[in-house]
Amino acid sequence: MPFDDQLRAETSALYADLYQLTMLQAYWREGMDERGVFDLFVRRLGSRNYFLACGLEQSLEFLETLSFSDEALGYLDAQDQFGDEFLEWLSDFEFTGDVYAVPEGTPVFPDEPIVEVVAPIGEAQLVETFLLNQITFQTTIASKASRVVEAAGAGETDRLVADFGMRRVHGTDAAMKAARAAYIAGVDATSNVAAGQAYGLPITGTMAHSYVEAHDSEVAAFRAFSDLYPETILLVDTYDTIGGVRKTIDLMEEREDDVHIRGIRLDSGDLAELAHESRRLLDEAGFEDIMIFASGGLDEYKIAELLDRGAPIDGFGVGTKMGTAADQPALDTAYKLCGYAGTPRMKLSAQKSNLPGRKQVFRQHEDDAAVRDVIATRGEQLNGTPLMDCVMSNGERTDAGASRPADAIREHAAARLADLPDRLRRLDPEVKDYEVVLSGAMEKRFNATRESLRGTMTAEAP
Amino acid sequence: MPFDDQLRAETSALYADLYQLTMLQAYWREGMDERGVFDLFVRRLGSRNYFLACGLEQSLEFLETLSFSDEALGYLDAQDQFGDEFLEWLSDFEFTGDVYAVPEGTPVFPDEPIVEVVAPIGEAQLVETFLLNQITFQTTIASKASRVVEAAGAGETDRLVADFGMRRVHGTDAAMKAARAAYIAGVDATSNVAAGQAYGLPITGTMAHSYVEAHDSEVAAFRAFSDLYPETILLVDTYDTIGGVRKTIDLMEEREDDVHIRGIRLDSGDLAELAHESRRLLDEAGFEDIMIFASGGLDEYKIAELLDRGAPIDGFGVGTKMGTAADQPALDTAYKLCGYAGTPRMKLSAQKSNLPGRKQVFRQHEDDAAVRDVIATRGEQLNGTPLMDCVMSNGERTDAGASRPADAIREHAAARLADLPDRLRRLDPEVKDYEVVLSGAMEKRFNATRESLRGTMTAEAP
Repeated sequence: MPFDDQLRAETSALYADLYQLTMLQAYWREGMDERGVFDLFVRRLGSRNYFLACGLEQSLEFLETLSFSDEALGYLDAQDQFGDEFLEWLSDFEFTGDVYAVPEGTPVFPDEPIVEVVAPIGEAQLVETFLLNQITFQTTIASKASRVVEAAGAGETDRLVADFGMRRVHGTDAAMKAARAAYIAGVDATSNVAAGQAYGLPITGTMAHSYVEAHDSEVAAFRAFSDLYPETILLVDTYDTIGGVRKTIDLMEEREDDVHIRGIRLDSGDLAELAHESRRLLDEAGFEDIMIFASGGLDEYKIAELLDRGAPIDGFGVGTKMGTAADQPALDTAYKLCGYAGTPRMKLSAQKSNLPGRKQVFRQHEDDAAVRDVIATRGEQLNGTPLMDCVMSNGERTDAGASRPADAIREHAAARLADLPDRLRRLDPEVKDYEVVLSGAMEKRFNATRESLRGTMTAEAP
Repeated sequence: MPFDDQLRAETSALYADLYQLTMLQAYWREGMDERGVFDLFVRRLGSRNYFLACGLEQSLEFLETLSFSDEALGYLDAQDQFGDEFLEWLSDFEFTGDVYAVPEGTPVFPDEPIVEVVAPIGEAQLVETFLLNQITFQTTIASKASRVVEAAGAGETDRLVADFGMRRVHGTDAAMKAARAAYIAGVDATSNVAAGQAYGLPITGTMAHSYVEAHDSEVAAFRAFSDLYPETILLVDTYDTIGGVRKTIDLMEEREDDVHIRGIRLDSGDLAELAHESRRLLDEAGFEDIMIFASGGLDEYKIAELLDRGAPIDGFGVGTKMGTAADQPALDTAYKLCGYAGTPRMKLSAQKSNLPGRKQVFRQHEDDAAVRDVIATRGEQLNGTPLMDCVMSNGERTDAGASRPADAIREHAAARLADLPDRLRRLDPEVKDYEVVLSGAMEKRFNATRESLRGTMTAEAP
């Protein structure tokens, strides 16, 4: 059985920072079992204009099945930090809380809860690491991929974007989840066969330079591959790009009735110039329907530049820079206690305070476009569409939290993205003017909680 | 069973780009089953002065166990691209090749093979995606972590570095492998309990702000936690850092005989200034042995800056920026065909050519320090230490390829890093002057292969 260690770890409650477990034992020892409320949110936009929420599905799977195996308990026992009675208690542990969340594929902004966990405080604390890990990463990639899709105009034209990132993303789980997140954000297909299988995504691919090199000639490679895969895409830049295009044309002319390829792929050099020249040669030969695909170090900025130069490119293979979100490989997410035992809580650390108490977010519209989000206290009824649903109740998924196919989430994302003001969907990093405000009640609660904490601190001061 | 899709994917040969499978079928149909040689190497240093090779262990595990399950074959069958006979052949597929590699924890430079796969070409091609995925990511993180360790002076002083990255790295596999890679690079411990269990790494942790906030007062939280964990580290910045330090001192004075904590953690604000002030207060109270730990957005640059300012910090918790290698989240790795059927092969694409044929790398020393690497043809005997071992033969791991504990790899890394010229281990990104040269025989082969390819292209030209 391969990857034994990894599998064991991923299906185990040990998928946590050590302090989650030491704090869990402390809460248990102190008899602190009242409900805590934790918000998972992003602190700052960084170089994004919005985030596309993603990762809830795997978070709920984790919460549903969380338990400590005998092996996990044995490992903890060996650490000399955990008592026998506590380990016995852990052996029956399960997550019994409620979860409120924004549906996957919804655009969100800083300070808005993506997920709110309401559970006995030790339970809510334990799951921090996994939830942050999955939601941060998947939201990071969905947000990046959404920009790539916008830059390619993939929603408005026939232009295609494929995820080619599997080889240089951060490990196996990243490859799976990045393919899923990119598809949700509007990418059309992935090269990742395992992700295709697991999530029902369209899979795609062309050929590698090595295949061309292993043959006695480029033409021999093209002939063999197009014989086997009649609608394939030939990689033309192994030795000399324009030479490769000419050979493709010769091959098609030579065997007009037998072989029809779908397109060619350019993977190096000046892609705009090569695309123009390739298009000209193909069109002159009467192959106007042969598509031109481009790949090689692409991201939303390079795609925008190529299209600005009028490059006649019909599809982009985008890999490493999208799959690692290279310009912003992590979002500044936090999972913060905002209530315990019915009382709002918050942190006052320098530049890291958070909003106290339970919340709802209302998205308000004018003329069919979103104009403002209001972060309100839970229970307030404001104008606009509430973004958060109850997705888990007493540890069980609700109807709103049921697993949804990637296609459905992708449609939701397309609709919600279309709802944003156009300026946010441009690449310009200066566009940060979407209005996110606190409701009057939230403002009041924030001030009251801060004052009350300052009072406590003064009373405590030595 | 949670994560079912993911587990299935990771233990499956479908963990590949689609084109690996279509090329495999093409090779099979064409009867091309002679041995191909593929090199896995990094093209450019980018913002590193060296790379620390990592990820071989999981690559060999994958190769040893690679097979197509019935479910995988069923999925491929449903794609309408694969013939029945081929799928039948796949059902008995196994990796039968040889693998040569640099041991994990060895510093390497651009163009030097980290792994060389010699196998029937379809087999060698199929495994590209997994090998690139694991070795790129793990080498990316080990190379980054090595810089963090150097900046902290962790090898030369008692100063500690802990990996706190689990919550914002790219998924579950990344969290596991990043903890391992960082430990190999010299990081002392990880917060990741699952990685501690899987790889035998030391685990560590402190407490969270939420724990402090859930209590009626900061003092109550400190008291409860230090009762339960006598050598704990208290997080002092939830409300006001210096106030938190004073409360820690009061607590220790109040209960001198019962409680001894190990240290305090600062997680926000001006860490250098707060460390100076905290140290002064602790020393004045006679607590010279209480350590000061710092965390919060750290990387090698911030650590160097803090130490330049004389910050009396005894340990660093380093998270997101190390675990995502934020300044260079992927290395420019390639897996390139360099031989087929006994003939050297290479690619001539613009700026992406590679070295033909099988290789060995010799590291040459002067005065006990490495001064030069020579990339030679396999079989040459040059001065210096050969870096590549045969780690797999006919699909079975050799003694040199046997699984090694993380501790042993870490020791190897420390020794090989100490062997590098001092200037390479500084943060200065301009230090790129380590000499990597081709042997005379390699130079000759490179030129001859290029000429021969150009000849072929001319002969083929329309």
